[in-house]
Amino acid sequence: MVFVTHIAPPLKRLSELFARIPGIGRKTALRMAYYIVSLPPEEAAAYADAIQSACQCLHYCSVCCDYTEDEKCEICADEKRDQSLVCVVESPQDLSAIERTGEYQGVYHVLHGAISPLDGIGPDQITVKELMARVSSGSIKEVIMATDSDTEGETTALYLTKLIKPFGVKVTRLAYGLPVGSDLQYADEITLSRAIAGRREI
Amino acid sequence: MVFVTHIAPPLKRLSELFARIPGIGRKTALRMAYYIVSLPPEEAAAYADAIQSACQCLHYCSVCCDYTEDEKCEICADEKRDQSLVCVVESPQDLSAIERTGEYQGVYHVLHGAISPLDGIGPDQITVKELMARVSSGSIKEVIMATDSDTEGETTALYLTKLIKPFGVKVTRLAYGLPVGSDLQYADEITLSRAIAGRREI
Repeated sequence: MVFVTHIAPPLKRLSELFARIPGIGRKTALRMAYYIVSLPPEEAAAYADAIQSACQCLHYCSVCCDYTEDEKCEICADEKRDQSLVCVVESPQDLSAIERTGEYQGVYHVLHGAISPLDGIGPDQITVKELMARVSSGSIKEVIMATDSDTEGETTALYLTKLIKPFGVKVTRLAYGLPVGSDLQYADEITLSRAIAGRREI
Repeated sequence: MVFVTHIAPPLKRLSELFARIPGIGRKTALRMAYYIVSLPPEEAAAYADAIQSACQCLHYCSVCCDYTEDEKCEICADEKRDQSLVCVVESPQDLSAIERTGEYQGVYHVLHGAISPLDGIGPDQITVKELMARVSSGSIKEVIMATDSDTEGETTALYLTKLIKPFGVKVTRLAYGLPVGSDLQYADEITLSRAIAGRREI
């Protein structure tokens, strides 16, 4: 797409930054930049402030590596949660998705990525070391692998399972099967064969 | 959509700001916030800097009211453009759309909105005064109304036409008709009747 040169450079720069965000196209990015510029100065400044304060105040939780302002995140600091049950997720958004179910009472470990040799992401680029420190402390009874079901997620789950098993910790994987409310005839073959293999007595 | 409380407040605040941008949903806003937070500090700071500098450096062009860093925008300062032909648009994005055709050699006037009594937007909330100052200066021969073809755009075009006509300036409106490459059978009735009314000899 051709970007015409008459757009004022500061607007162009802002829209180019927005366009770097995954899922944000060039047109949306430009619309965002125009919107922010059109705001009254104090409202526009709120965006800059929010970005700065988010980047300055947030860091990894010392236990689970989710983002937090404190030393420990709310979930790790919550005594009502089962600290011996750890759910390993790739991203904070995955953690949010599981929290939204309202069913899970354990804690988490956020990897901040998945092993992907093609992208140069090995175990050292994600929080494997931190997870293994938790596992080797002996306080964990079960680790649930909730990485994505794509190649990277599967590789990561397998790799971590091999590392964790020797500590005598139970390792489980999220169930694969048909999404609830889906139509069986439209399920892909792999999901369907996994659903058959993982069938349960009713 | 339920936003779970465990998301760190700075992340929540940033995503709520992004969600205010028209066309950005809550999920996209949260994804954007997570993306920016996950960046190295200097890259994240670039976003805050770009917003600040865009808001500080940009203001309306003293002639056409498009955003510019200088006193006059590039187009108004360009002596090769026909300064007696003014195309009136609602937004800088509309201006960009016309520039992308590469066909138009006149200049512009950006209204920054359209008259919409229901939203409390009257002639004083958009740059009508600035346009009339240009018209009354006597240097303009033709004004092309390129406002949207919705109710607000039509109202604005009509209103401006009534104001401008007494100055003896020619006022034109963009042609309505079938979009190029479109299938006639799918055209809506209003577009089709306008296309018939506006038919030209070939």
